[in-house]
Amino acid sequence: MTGPTIPDTDRKQPAFVLVRPQMGENIGASARAMWNFGLDRMRLVAPRDGWPNPAAVAMASGAGRLLDGAGLFDDVAGAVGDCHFVMATTARARGLTKPVLSPERAMQEAARRLAAGERVAMLFGPERAGLENEDVARANALVNVPVNPEFPSLNLAQCVLLCAYEWRRATAEVVAERMDMAGADRADRQEIERLADHYEERLEAAGFFFPAHKAARMRLSLRNMWSRMPLTGADVRMLHGIMRQMVRRAGRG
Amino acid sequence: MTGPTIPDTDRKQPAFVLVRPQMGENIGASARAMWNFGLDRMRLVAPRDGWPNPAAVAMASGAGRLLDGAGLFDDVAGAVGDCHFVMATTARARGLTKPVLSPERAMQEAARRLAAGERVAMLFGPERAGLENEDVARANALVNVPVNPEFPSLNLAQCVLLCAYEWRRATAEVVAERMDMAGADRADRQEIERLADHYEERLEAAGFFFPAHKAARMRLSLRNMWSRMPLTGADVRMLHGIMRQMVRRAGRG
Repeated sequence: MTGPTIPDTDRKQPAFVLVRPQMGENIGASARAMWNFGLDRMRLVAPRDGWPNPAAVAMASGAGRLLDGAGLFDDVAGAVGDCHFVMATTARARGLTKPVLSPERAMQEAARRLAAGERVAMLFGPERAGLENEDVARANALVNVPVNPEFPSLNLAQCVLLCAYEWRRATAEVVAERMDMAGADRADRQEIERLADHYEERLEAAGFFFPAHKAARMRLSLRNMWSRMPLTGADVRMLHGIMRQMVRRAGRG
Repeated sequence: MTGPTIPDTDRKQPAFVLVRPQMGENIGASARAMWNFGLDRMRLVAPRDGWPNPAAVAMASGAGRLLDGAGLFDDVAGAVGDCHFVMATTARARGLTKPVLSPERAMQEAARRLAAGERVAMLFGPERAGLENEDVARANALVNVPVNPEFPSLNLAQCVLLCAYEWRRATAEVVAERMDMAGADRADRQEIERLADHYEERLEAAGFFFPAHKAARMRLSLRNMWSRMPLTGADVRMLHGIMRQMVRRAGRG
């Protein structure tokens, strides 16, 4: 059952190694999860139902080429033979002295080592039992997803998804916060001032600033509100229009 | 179809609101994904196949009480009526001027606001179409998962999983790196020194440090290697044993 020689001469991403996976559906879902975050190097160790697997292909739709390109191996030693750094995902302590990394730290470490020219693999165990201690003993470090201890059961593709997500966070420029402007520009201070003046003037005329001893405070609050709001030029124009319309109605009524 | 009044007087976690979800299986899988990371406040807006849904219950196994406790609403406005801050997960730009947050930033923001006594909701759209612009217009911010632009299709439960994972990262103490010691303690400098001495002495006697002009360098490299390795007391004892055994064999042979 030994497969093609290890295909990735490209060292810029970790190989995800599914060890003795059972359901073809989970292999396909794992391929999708990898490709959702830009990873496409899959290796398989002794899949239970043989290989290729039609159920895997059906589930992978859109990420099927990961399956076509997947390396097939008899055992973990063969699957990671060319790798310099191997991490094993595991849900429980193993009675082995070994570093345990969060998924975030693991993928930062993977990115760092790949950039330095090393080859890196992540091991994922079979659906129910997880990796055996023999597999884990071959890893340089463990990776532990910080699940709710009352309900720790992640399925294979979910574990792959979270690791792939952390890979992307570690390597793509993920913008923490930006503003979608929908073609509009943020209003500048002059526009905000004119808006504040317009409202103040019209509200003054309408007798809004009452009673007199509170008027100064009310003006200040109003001007502060305009400054506090993240207004676009279009917002400002709309607010001018609202006030103009109300004045017009008042004139008519 | 209006459900029970909103149950969470506990303000310490965001509500995850599934908007017009289609497949019961996806509702169940979302419940599991939430509970994997300690979230248990689900709200449902107009689930396509009615409610309760046996397929959701079958899939949720272990997280079924989230479904029992889920609030049921006719529309988004009702589902988030008690919330102070609403975020909408979305895969694409909307032509609306609105802040866009990464899942990490979103959940940090949620934690901050919840700690300040606000109620927070996350909206998740139906499987194929995603949220409508009318739903999105009710949100204070968008949340955008940084997927591979060539293959952005995340399913509902995966999107829920990633947000729930980020919630846990934002609120639980996730240790980036620790060492599982398997009951063993790290060897101290004295133990390392004695080990280095033992090997140096025995290797000297065995004629290992040869040729003479390289001996000093070889000794230094060997001593450096012991210092570089993260050895436990048990490792040190094993290494002493290995050397003793080799000496014993050599004496016999």
